[in-house]
Amino acid sequence: MPADHHAPHAALRLAQDLIRCPSVTPEDRGALDVVADALRQAGFTIERPVFAEPGFPDTPNLFARLGDRSPCLVFAGHTDVVPAGEGAWRHDPFEGAVVDGMLYGRGAADMKGGIACMLAATLAFLVDRGPDFPGSIAFLITGDEEGPAVNGTVKLLDWARARGERFDHCVLGEPTNPGRLGEMIKIGRRGSLTGKLTVLGRQGHVAYPYKAENPIPGLLRLASALVAEPLDGGTAHFDASNLEFTTIDVGNPATNVIPATARATFNVRFNDDWTAESLGAEIRRRLEQAAGNAVRFSLDLQPSNAPAFLTRPDGFVDLVSEAIRAETGLTPVLSTTGGTSDARFIKDFCPVIEFGLVGETMHQTDECVAVADLERLTAIYERVLKAYFPVS
Amino acid sequence: MPADHHAPHAALRLAQDLIRCPSVTPEDRGALDVVADALRQAGFTIERPVFAEPGFPDTPNLFARLGDRSPCLVFAGHTDVVPAGEGAWRHDPFEGAVVDGMLYGRGAADMKGGIACMLAATLAFLVDRGPDFPGSIAFLITGDEEGPAVNGTVKLLDWARARGERFDHCVLGEPTNPGRLGEMIKIGRRGSLTGKLTVLGRQGHVAYPYKAENPIPGLLRLASALVAEPLDGGTAHFDASNLEFTTIDVGNPATNVIPATARATFNVRFNDDWTAESLGAEIRRRLEQAAGNAVRFSLDLQPSNAPAFLTRPDGFVDLVSEAIRAETGLTPVLSTTGGTSDARFIKDFCPVIEFGLVGETMHQTDECVAVADLERLTAIYERVLKAYFPVS
Ligand SMILES: [Zn+2]
Ligand SMILES: [Zn+2]
Repeated sequence: MPADHHAPHAALRLAQDLIRCPSVTPEDRGALDVVADALRQAGFTIERPVFAEPGFPDTPNLFARLGDRSPCLVFAGHTDVVPAGEGAWRHDPFEGAVVDGMLYGRGAADMKGGIACMLAATLAFLVDRGPDFPGSIAFLITGDEEGPAVNGTVKLLDWARARGERFDHCVLGEPTNPGRLGEMIKIGRRGSLTGKLTVLGRQGHVAYPYKAENPIPGLLRLASALVAEPLDGGTAHFDASNLEFTTIDVGNPATNVIPATARATFNVRFNDDWTAESLGAEIRRRLEQAAGNAVRFSLDLQPSNAPAFLTRPDGFVDLVSEAIRAETGLTPVLSTTGGTSDARFIKDFCPVIEFGLVGETMHQTDECVAVADLERLTAIYERVLKAYFPVS
Repeated sequence: MPADHHAPHAALRLAQDLIRCPSVTPEDRGALDVVADALRQAGFTIERPVFAEPGFPDTPNLFARLGDRSPCLVFAGHTDVVPAGEGAWRHDPFEGAVVDGMLYGRGAADMKGGIACMLAATLAFLVDRGPDFPGSIAFLITGDEEGPAVNGTVKLLDWARARGERFDHCVLGEPTNPGRLGEMIKIGRRGSLTGKLTVLGRQGHVAYPYKAENPIPGLLRLASALVAEPLDGGTAHFDASNLEFTTIDVGNPATNVIPATARATFNVRFNDDWTAESLGAEIRRRLEQAAGNAVRFSLDLQPSNAPAFLTRPDGFVDLVSEAIRAETGLTPVLSTTGGTSDARFIKDFCPVIEFGLVGETMHQTDECVAVADLERLTAIYERVLKAYFPVS
């Protein structure tokens, strides 16, 4: 089978080509050209929309499709990467060195490696099956995921919808495996809600506390009330929701002055027990109960574009799990842990699951992946394509 | 009685002369010359030591003494003032305008007005009694009280001690009356202790709280423990000690990051139940108890030069109270409230009480005092002198 033999090498080569483009958000530096060249050569129609928003850098995106029949399977991802950081890399972060079976470079795991495997698997699938399979394959690739993410997947999806594109299932290639390829699929994500709490007092001198009103004891009381009781006990597919205070800032340099206000910020990662609205109402209820008539406060809940969502475990999830099991011998956990991802936007268009490389080194110095994992992930994606578009 | 008639006018004139010197710390601008000229003309020996300290501006001070016999009564005070501030004054802060019976100007209350009354009372006393009274009068006047206070009363006292000066009682002319002349003498001051509390955690992503250690809940716990129970119930002459948190600062701008450390600062105004050492030990005990093994923290107690102290209510306090009662009809409260003052240094040399003008407008825009209060305070100080140095 020459295709199977060819695909692994293609994935490594494509991953190196991508890593050698230093596409730190919002730079592209040729990264999307690598994707476009590979897909064009396989017969895809390529679109390269650039999105703009006042106050944000213009960002390039790529949409590619082969075929116009249903069902349409979408591969999604991002070519932008976080900066190399301050740490000293053993191998240049934008060189793509392979040492002792590991490919080093910024984006190796998150997620140029994943994109390379999607491309290589698609090319191998098409070499094997030809262009006349019963459906279509699309690629939704953005250059704005690690940054503000305003000119990325959100706009690319709207743009595709406006063109009449319809998708049936999506695989997002984020590095979902904590330590070993095959151990984890993400079938949903917790939502994220950020709130800013301000407690109001009255400034004065510490020697005359009765003439002032220190907001800090009130803040201690309200903040303690928010972390005192868990928000829930978790759901069938989700961990318990979790609230973390990320900062408290009063900014009063004078040790003899009682400050006028105290501010704190918290972030909640919430499960499918909640919407941003119901969670905001519960938080407000807890604060009001703790405040009583004694503490004056205001709560500013930031608009959330990260709801909790779940892709119901069904035939598509089984299909991907089976492909993973066949290549790795592992039965992947169906997880909803971790941060948010672009899947939260894609889920409004079609069921989406996330599966990619091992994320252990992502965003770190010496980010790397095993070359063998690139080969196996390519094989998994190719199995997904073959199972999704069975020979009739 | 020409002396009594003369003194009030002298106090107003001297207060205006002082206000017209814009002696915002560390500037002098002729203020101490006004004091020196008045005292030299009355026969005092004047010394004008200037003290220096690396990193601080040199500051002028004045020591004056008349007589070498015991007992020695000291008048103490400061000629420096806080800046005029941002507010719009109705009358130039350095002009000394008298409008509707009020003298306006920066320092009118705190405490150029008080110094003017001390000078006028002393001049009147000497006109009345001549230089041959049974004791001595001294003036300890500094130009560094409102600023860093390192080149002021502390050094002036050491300087005087090194010269062999001995003092028996001191009146510090700070504006002790909250609203009405005669209502309050300060016979002591609470101590002040500042502490900085740092809670240590481990930075991480809010989506992976189990990989991080948020220091904020620990800070909430420790800070709440410090404000939960009163430090004491007050003592015979002091209010309860009081702890105020003045700031909490984490300084983490990223709403998706759990911070590594959280810092808070508190200040305690403590009574004579405590020394800075015993109070620091109690605070550390409360923190350790609240922390258990769950919270890692460090406590940095700043060196305190402000102990709690009390001048035992005795014959001298009675003498001053009686002078106040005779002029105002009010029996002054013997208080230990308010901030710290240079009395905390003087108390190591001789018993010190504080009594001056009405402090309602001190440090504010349109600082002012009633001209009638200047006259009455002068009369009170003169009564103190007469009672302290009785005709034998
Ligand atoms: Zn990513
Ligand atoms: Zn003062």
